Amino acid sequence: MLDTTGTLHKVDIGEFITEAGATIPNVTIAYQAWGTFHGNNLIVVEHALTGDSNVVDWWDGVVGPGKALDTDKYCVLCTNALGGCMGSTGPTSLAPDGNHWGSRFPALSIRDLVAAEKQFLDKVGVTQILAVLGGSMGGARTLEWTLLYPQLVNAALVLAVSARASAWQIGIQTAQISAIEQDPDWQGGDYYRTEATPHNGLAAARRIAHLTYRGELEIDERFGTTVQPGENPLGPYRDPHQRFAVQSYLDYQGVKLTERFDAGTYVTLTEAMNRHDIGRGRGGLNKALAASQVPTMIAGVDTDILYPYHQQEHLSRNLGNLLAMAKISSPVGHDAFLVECRQVSRIIRHFLTMADANGTDANMYFI
Amino acid sequence: MLDTTGTLHKVDIGEFITEAGATIPNVTIAYQAWGTFHGNNLIVVEHALTGDSNVVDWWDGVVGPGKALDTDKYCVLCTNALGGCMGSTGPTSLAPDGNHWGSRFPALSIRDLVAAEKQFLDKVGVTQILAVLGGSMGGARTLEWTLLYPQLVNAALVLAVSARASAWQIGIQTAQISAIEQDPDWQGGDYYRTEATPHNGLAAARRIAHLTYRGELEIDERFGTTVQPGENPLGPYRDPHQRFAVQSYLDYQGVKLTERFDAGTYVTLTEAMNRHDIGRGRGGLNKALAASQVPTMIAGVDTDILYPYHQQEHLSRNLGNLLAMAKISSPVGHDAFLVECRQVSRIIRHFLTMADANGTDANMYFI
Repeated sequence: MLDTTGTLHKVDIGEFITEAGATIPNVTIAYQAWGTFHGNNLIVVEHALTGDSNVVDWWDGVVGPGKALDTDKYCVLCTNALGGCMGSTGPTSLAPDGNHWGSRFPALSIRDLVAAEKQFLDKVGVTQILAVLGGSMGGARTLEWTLLYPQLVNAALVLAVSARASAWQIGIQTAQISAIEQDPDWQGGDYYRTEATPHNGLAAARRIAHLTYRGELEIDERFGTTVQPGENPLGPYRDPHQRFAVQSYLDYQGVKLTERFDAGTYVTLTEAMNRHDIGRGRGGLNKALAASQVPTMIAGVDTDILYPYHQQEHLSRNLGNLLAMAKISSPVGHDAFLVECRQVSRIIRHFLTMADANGTDANMYFI
Repeated sequence: MLDTTGTLHKVDIGEFITEAGATIPNVTIAYQAWGTFHGNNLIVVEHALTGDSNVVDWWDGVVGPGKALDTDKYCVLCTNALGGCMGSTGPTSLAPDGNHWGSRFPALSIRDLVAAEKQFLDKVGVTQILAVLGGSMGGARTLEWTLLYPQLVNAALVLAVSARASAWQIGIQTAQISAIEQDPDWQGGDYYRTEATPHNGLAAARRIAHLTYRGELEIDERFGTTVQPGENPLGPYRDPHQRFAVQSYLDYQGVKLTERFDAGTYVTLTEAMNRHDIGRGRGGLNKALAASQVPTMIAGVDTDILYPYHQQEHLSRNLGNLLAMAKISSPVGHDAFLVECRQVSRIIRHFLTMADANGTDANMYFI
């Protein structure tokens, strides 16, 4: 049933009911897959907040023939998350009445994203996952995979995330949502058939987010108080068009996101991150972690501001079946899980060696 | 000339010319002072971004009879910074044409705030400062005091700040300015005689700022994913009125600031922090620090996200006349310089012992 040529496919998975009880009829999940599917060689990669199913693009140092996620050996599959705007059903999609979902699209939890992905795998006939992995929002989904559907998952690799949203994460993520909702072009979330799009709000959200994705020292070493060429941020009157280099850099990051991503989707998926809590309804965080039986490897980044390394240490201390623990050492901060491909590849290769052994031969060890 | 009864006074210091060359006529600087002024017992306290001259209020654990800044012994003086809204000339003030300055108010640097304070001290006849101290923006001003007017300053204590704005600080501060400027009620900065005030924008700015003022672990320990009583942030549809406790807490912090502070002033002083760079025009950061001759003590907070402790270590390594170095150990983060009064008082007492000795007997030591 799986097309493994890398082509983007959209699969109708029928009705989906969210954790909070809302119904979404006619849900579509988009996917891409590479390699040959043998039935027991499926690796599911979970993308981060603004990611998509095209994992060979956004993780190109990690996925491909001969690479850590070796498409000569494994079948690597990546879906666009429910709520997304890259092929799966989300706020940008048309509701049954023919209008865009917009503000009517239900709130989602991380569990919803995973449950919809499970519904998709059922639909395409996949009954076994050799390994599931991902970072940030992808890591949160990976964790939920191990707790919602442990029978399907042979092993999991969780990168740069926490067991639940921290209060600080909720705070900074809410600031991003707020930046979008304050944009007059947001129009309460129902801008899809209007002349205006909340690009300013989305760009502002991204500028804030980007400061949590990057290490403070790395940004400072790159930009410091350097002035943007041709501009003078030290003039006699404040002028937002006269910028320091870091301001120009953040403006660029903001605008770049508006060219490829939707504001309503950003709100929906950020809200899902606010709701990330593997302890909910499971007797609390550590009880939920202790009950986990899927062999799980944890990795984090030493300079991560958004998901500080102590959060991965917390996971590793409390997980019921910890496979291994690894630290990515990088000035880059949170984004290191995307850009430090050498270290991440090494971690993935170790992980897959253990996952291939089905967890049985692998003693827990720290690499 | 100085009234030391704690009464708020406003002193006309005449025309002021900014570092970038703009002229502000008829500048007023507000001050309060306590204790008895002997000519050589003046301690100048520099307030932080949204502070004011009423230091016995916002630093009440530190200032007063018998306290670390002992008003039985010292004369403690605090001015409202130029650009402020608590008595000194700033965007809320009336320009010579009788209208509010608003968007016409010049951009200020940290050096401008210090130069205006110097102009004020000249006016009231003060020619010697036993000690100048402050944290955050107050620390930046303290540093500039030691470099602009070393002949006046016997000793300085710099808390929780850096030698210049880091790129990350510029980025997160610019996000705050942007939140204000995106508020339709901002009206380009000229809202003072209109029906609308950019409260929403200022509150949004404060919510972001507050997440940099507090330690991530402290906020998480206090709030975690606790739900605000009577609200349900996990319902089937996103609703900003259904909040986690941390969202309610940040909303409160935002609203509270709008009740006591002005948005235009916030932009002006935040812009001044963006321009903080003691190396500018002095041959660079470390050359400027090395040339410093005023005995200076540096202190920082171990969990400070905004001014990470390595920035105070940088200061201490490079200052030409380092008096001592101290670390405040606290989960609170940046705000610890305001709230950890026991530790801060201990640091100040050590500092003043050395400052009283005029720096001559005090060998550099670490407490």
